[in-house]
Amino acid sequence: MGKVYLVGAGPGDPELLTLKAFHLLQRAPVVLHDRLVDGRILDLVPGQKVYVGKEEGESEKQEAIHRLLLSYARRYPFVVRLKGGDPMVFGRGGEEALFLLRHGIPVEVVPGVSSVLSPGLPLTHRGLAHGFAAVSGVLEGGGYPDLSPFAQAPTLVVLMGVKRRVWIAQELLRLGRVPEEPTLFVERATTPKERRIPARLGEVAQGKVAVEAPALWILGEVVRVLEEAPRETEALLRR
Amino acid sequence: MGKVYLVGAGPGDPELLTLKAFHLLQRAPVVLHDRLVDGRILDLVPGQKVYVGKEEGESEKQEAIHRLLLSYARRYPFVVRLKGGDPMVFGRGGEEALFLLRHGIPVEVVPGVSSVLSPGLPLTHRGLAHGFAAVSGVLEGGGYPDLSPFAQAPTLVVLMGVKRRVWIAQELLRLGRVPEEPTLFVERATTPKERRIPARLGEVAQGKVAVEAPALWILGEVVRVLEEAPRETEALLRR
Repeated sequence: MGKVYLVGAGPGDPELLTLKAFHLLQRAPVVLHDRLVDGRILDLVPGQKVYVGKEEGESEKQEAIHRLLLSYARRYPFVVRLKGGDPMVFGRGGEEALFLLRHGIPVEVVPGVSSVLSPGLPLTHRGLAHGFAAVSGVLEGGGYPDLSPFAQAPTLVVLMGVKRRVWIAQELLRLGRVPEEPTLFVERATTPKERRIPARLGEVAQGKVAVEAPALWILGEVVRVLEEAPRETEALLRR
Repeated sequence: MGKVYLVGAGPGDPELLTLKAFHLLQRAPVVLHDRLVDGRILDLVPGQKVYVGKEEGESEKQEAIHRLLLSYARRYPFVVRLKGGDPMVFGRGGEEALFLLRHGIPVEVVPGVSSVLSPGLPLTHRGLAHGFAAVSGVLEGGGYPDLSPFAQAPTLVVLMGVKRRVWIAQELLRLGRVPEEPTLFVERATTPKERRIPARLGEVAQGKVAVEAPALWILGEVVRVLEEAPRETEALLRR
């Protein structure tokens, strides 16, 4: 009976894999992976690759993933379950771990670089933000999240919020944030297709901002910190 | 004039370095590092190592660190500034980047595994938490943070909060959290000295819980998801 490693693939750039993740991917007989795992990372896997991706909010497949994990764990000495970013935030890693543990399968979590941190912006910054919050725009099953426990955070990161960005912006305005607030969408962070779209919260609420999923959405004064630097900053910060 | 890489060292275990961080550490002529960077990681550095650590909340040294970074950047082809966890959260990475950019030094951020994620617990979990918040227990300069924007988050992670844990617990109770809430301290996560201390919020508020810094403090039902598998968790998950 094999151990299952719940492994974070990081935000996209293969160089942002952890050493541990890299070594596991090189040795794993089988890797079950999500939609959000970058193709360049899958290219590093010599073993069998099994795609078990879901669309945002699509949850009926979760049970099937659980059963698949269990059957591979019973067949192989070990199995890698690879998830975009970190495996234990916004990825249902907890549910998968719990299911496996209940069936007597050992589980080890290998944390990864969370997508939340991928744009390299300071989420906290002296005098602007002494903490941050992160929330998903979609509940498991597709429901709309209650944003009120997160609405006052000086820096707020929204994941899986692109499709519902108008609703989210309106909701956050209703909960006390201001239309002038600077925000930043980052499409496909750390990949060659990365694109950064700055927008005021009010513009987003009015449906004026075009963004393509998957993208991260960061709200708060921190998005402007590095812009205060000379104009070349943006170019300097690019990989 | 050398580029400065602001690099996350991850939570402690050298295997949780990113490939990019590992390669930079192997090649860097000089590495300026914090107090919280694990010794096993520093052992990987063949170049010059410069300790620029500060104690919690000690801020007068920050200007000296800026000047030191600048002088090394002017002397070497490139410089690594290594910080525990991710370089852009709770680490003043934004300030250092800004200072260097203003002096014409190119900066590249290499994200790392945040300490926030290091215990491998699900910070979000279906039916329990659709997001999380993270806050520092100490402001730059040593001040006490306003916890109110974070107090309602279903999962709350407190960094640098060990010394002030009684005050923080009392404050969070005043702001509406409940004494029965399960919480977990994780000392030196991902290192051989890791120790996990579960405690109710009310016990912490009464000064009954012994913890040694540095430790992460996670509050919320999620701390019980994996620890009490399988029996207790089922009840939690059915809510």
